[in-house]
Amino acid sequence: MKAFFLTNNIMKAKTPKETEAISTKIVLPNDTNPLGNLFGGRLLAWMDEIAYVSANRHSRRVAVTASINNVSFNKPIKLGETVTLKAKVSRAFSSSMEVIIDVFVENSVTGEQSSSNQAIYTFVAVDQNGTPIHVPMLSPETELEEQRYAAALRRKQLSLILAGKLKPSEATELKALFDEKETNS
Amino acid sequence: MKAFFLTNNIMKAKTPKETEAISTKIVLPNDTNPLGNLFGGRLLAWMDEIAYVSANRHSRRVAVTASINNVSFNKPIKLGETVTLKAKVSRAFSSSMEVIIDVFVENSVTGEQSSSNQAIYTFVAVDQNGTPIHVPMLSPETELEEQRYAAALRRKQLSLILAGKLKPSEATELKALFDEKETNS
Amino acid sequence: MKAFFLTNNIMKAKTPKETEAISTKIVLPNDTNPLGNLFGGRLLAWMDEIAYVSANRHSRRVAVTASINNVSFNKPIKLGETVTLKAKVSRAFSSSMEVIIDVFVENSVTGEQSSSNQAIYTFVAVDQNGTPIHVPMLSPETELEEQRYAAALRRKQLSLILAGKLKPSEATELKALFDEKETNS
Amino acid sequence: MKAFFLTNNIMKAKTPKETEAISTKIVLPNDTNPLGNLFGGRLLAWMDEIAYVSANRHSRRVAVTASINNVSFNKPIKLGETVTLKAKVSRAFSSSMEVIIDVFVENSVTGEQSSSNQAIYTFVAVDQNGTPIHVPMLSPETELEEQRYAAALRRKQLSLILAGKLKPSEATELKALFDEKETNS
Amino acid sequence: MKAFFLTNNIMKAKTPKETEAISTKIVLPNDTNPLGNLFGGRLLAWMDEIAYVSANRHSRRVAVTASINNVSFNKPIKLGETVTLKAKVSRAFSSSMEVIIDVFVENSVTGEQSSSNQAIYTFVAVDQNGTPIHVPMLSPETELEEQRYAAALRRKQLSLILAGKLKPSEATELKALFDEKETNS
Amino acid sequence: MKAFFLTNNIMKAKTPKETEAISTKIVLPNDTNPLGNLFGGRLLAWMDEIAYVSANRHSRRVAVTASINNVSFNKPIKLGETVTLKAKVSRAFSSSMEVIIDVFVENSVTGEQSSSNQAIYTFVAVDQNGTPIHVPMLSPETELEEQRYAAALRRKQLSLILAGKLKPSEATELKALFDEKETNS
Repeated sequence: MKAFFLTNNIMKAKTPKETEAISTKIVLPNDTNPLGNLFGGRLLAWMDEIAYVSANRHSRRVAVTASINNVSFNKPIKLGETVTLKAKVSRAFSSSMEVIIDVFVENSVTGEQSSSNQAIYTFVAVDQNGTPIHVPMLSPETELEEQRYAAALRRKQLSLILAGKLKPSEATELKALFDEKETNS
Repeated sequence: MKAFFLTNNIMKAKTPKETEAISTKIVLPNDTNPLGNLFGGRLLAWMDEIAYVSANRHSRRVAVTASINNVSFNKPIKLGETVTLKAKVSRAFSSSMEVIIDVFVENSVTGEQSSSNQAIYTFVAVDQNGTPIHVPMLSPETELEEQRYAAALRRKQLSLILAGKLKPSEATELKALFDEKETNS
Repeated sequence: MKAFFLTNNIMKAKTPKETEAISTKIVLPNDTNPLGNLFGGRLLAWMDEIAYVSANRHSRRVAVTASINNVSFNKPIKLGETVTLKAKVSRAFSSSMEVIIDVFVENSVTGEQSSSNQAIYTFVAVDQNGTPIHVPMLSPETELEEQRYAAALRRKQLSLILAGKLKPSEATELKALFDEKETNS
Repeated sequence: MKAFFLTNNIMKAKTPKETEAISTKIVLPNDTNPLGNLFGGRLLAWMDEIAYVSANRHSRRVAVTASINNVSFNKPIKLGETVTLKAKVSRAFSSSMEVIIDVFVENSVTGEQSSSNQAIYTFVAVDQNGTPIHVPMLSPETELEEQRYAAALRRKQLSLILAGKLKPSEATELKALFDEKETNS
Repeated sequence: MKAFFLTNNIMKAKTPKETEAISTKIVLPNDTNPLGNLFGGRLLAWMDEIAYVSANRHSRRVAVTASINNVSFNKPIKLGETVTLKAKVSRAFSSSMEVIIDVFVENSVTGEQSSSNQAIYTFVAVDQNGTPIHVPMLSPETELEEQRYAAALRRKQLSLILAGKLKPSEATELKALFDEKETNS
Repeated sequence: MKAFFLTNNIMKAKTPKETEAISTKIVLPNDTNPLGNLFGGRLLAWMDEIAYVSANRHSRRVAVTASINNVSFNKPIKLGETVTLKAKVSRAFSSSMEVIIDVFVENSVTGEQSSSNQAIYTFVAVDQNGTPIHVPMLSPETELEEQRYAAALRRKQLSLILAGKLKPSEATELKALFDEKETNS
């Protein structure tokens, strides 16, 4: 266990910027439902792919999707629109990484860009046998990165409570959840 | 508003069984990461597709993915394995439907089947203009369906709190969350 | 040869129910011809995939498509419709299995379900070197399964005659073919 | 009915050569089963696509797959091999066309080409409403084309008998089937 | 013709930065040849897609690929590697835009990034009828952008000469080509 | 080096006809832009695939795309049209092969065929380690093949000049380029 922290300390911490991965896609006919809107599942797969790249950039390991948090799809994305996904690691734990994916939609005629939605995926770095392995720590730089870094811990605690692995009374960080307005980022 | 309830009452309630949709897939090379395990994003897209069929069977309308709940990927699914997805509506609200997808993995050599993981998607039924539209109510039949029906309300409240649209103190149903062991189903 | 029958007897016979595999698909734009109807070839590939799962469930081996019987496409399946394929082994021979796939189409608006068409594929179980290997016998349970089991032998005889490997005069079972009305199931 | 034959006569007959369509594919990882061999269903879809082109070249209409005859898969096609499909109309009836697809496999290292298998698809030409519409007659030129032209009628009769739409005693052409050795071409 | 220049002047010039589009992909099994290296054609399609987004960002119109310049593939890109494509408009003419795509490859284990190759695509902006339509001018900002802007004209002249539409003697800008060392950027 | 030429001489020269590869595709919805026209990138990928087959037929080796020459897309190819690609090696150098791909488009209703465009790809034959390896020489037969064979050398020289590996004064063959009208074939 002591070796653990040593190892973890030795690995150079990374900044969210170093883990950023971007992908831009055009919504094609096969990506859409009968109303001509992007299928949610297609977007989920796109988000997973780019988040995978981000988690790999942080860990330099094969990373496996461990869980995804609440994702909401606020407004439809239409056939022919341009979708940009930006993924960054928001916090690293011993072998897991939380990755936030921000999705922007751009109307190809007006050029109008708008934030479409956001998703939070958790990846675990594994070795060749699929065994979890340590990852570097993350050093947030901007204010938004700091906020997301703090919120990541609360999300982890909530997730442990929901999985029955942590008592609500022990989740000291989580209490903030019920007082805050901006809880998603 | 009165018309609303009338409409809703007139539509014949459906049972979860009537909304069940099943799909079976083989994990092909392009679905896998460098360790030969199914990408999480591929599974998310498969789950969305079959959940869409279930939501459509309940509503007989185009249904759009509104959100997905915490999904966890417990153990890797390997190249060549057979994946079966079973989706059923767990509860219907005015225009939204919660769909639970149970995923089973089958080793193609031993035939061993095991529950792999579970996901919860919420769909909204919409008309031709994309406007939400009422859906029938759901009448759970089995004990498991009853449990899931009850839990769906707690999940909805938690989701509203997380979105800042409901005060924790008003979420009377949610308190159970902190006392229960089996919260996922 | 004696060892053969021993081996075959030792393997526990399976019921068609145990071999059942189901898959549900939505017809997407890329699956359709210029009239907006599902390409026959796309359906053939879907049928092969689910029949493969069924043959694998019976044999627990890699199964290779050996032949497909007459398949007819009676009425067009339209863009956006839901297609359900149900595959079950109808009879097992020494190393080959006949799999019948029933296709049902569901209009996503009216919910109307109708039997669309039926196909009969034959698979051969093989070992790692691609050599045919024995499979368990099949024990039909329902009346329809009994009918299909009996018809499978006639189909096999017809197929051997067409391949010039059996004289029509030796195909005693096949004579029934020319007297019956319901020959397809 | 008289008008029918007039129409049919007016349309200029085509030769099989004019309807020929060729496609060459490389077997990629996603096309193969766990033994590294091409899935039968993938080949069936490829055959349907190129046969569609051939039927379209004959009829200059949208053509829908009506049925496929017995297809057998004699030897496995391996990952990385080159597959060439040649489709030609073998006979045209009033609104339907029988298309024969010959499949050749080429080892990419030795260059050795071999006939892999053959399939027979039937297409029906339709108008914008999906109603069957007359197609030109076919004039076979080579000896092989003559043989296939004659065999096509026997196949049609057999197919009608199997569908219960023709009495065996009326299928005068079919009797030849039981005397011949080469029945497939 | 006068109206032309007026129109062109009225449209606000854009900077290369405003037209930048980025996409990141993982090389999957189906993207590779038997040596496990990315197919050139797959990369060409990826480059076209992201260049399309860039041309659309410049023109806010549907843009059609008009031509691609010499592209060379210097070193193989391997299965599992991460490929990042960055596209920017390098020069705009009346209705056409030259887009340069820089490709970077990242080893997913070492994180080592290297410039893989570069491609130059030309797009034409079109209206609903497919008729070419004016696009804004481009104002290069950095030194590299200035170089590429100047080189774009020489490439256009060379292309016109190769198409027989310009006499070499008239291509005053092109003469520089034979004196320079760095002609690609 | 002497061994080189011996080896090269020993390998039997091939004719362009022996290297011909043909593929026919139907333009499906997912292949098209918002105007319903085939994406250039999709066509580039199709051309690469069939050119790969041609280079493999010449060399009987894995061939990797080394470069592609100027390709122009003259007129749009529409949804539902039939595209035929014909690839033939136009000249072989020590380990590289120039492949010319001619693209023909066929309106599926009128049957009208027209030459759509042409592309020139260069492939390099490699051994298992990816090292370039000698290929047979090419013996052009028809007049067009002779022309393309001669032009291939000029293209190679131009390409070397553009890459800074050959001085314009040394490119004796290239001078013809500035005198000729038909330089593309």
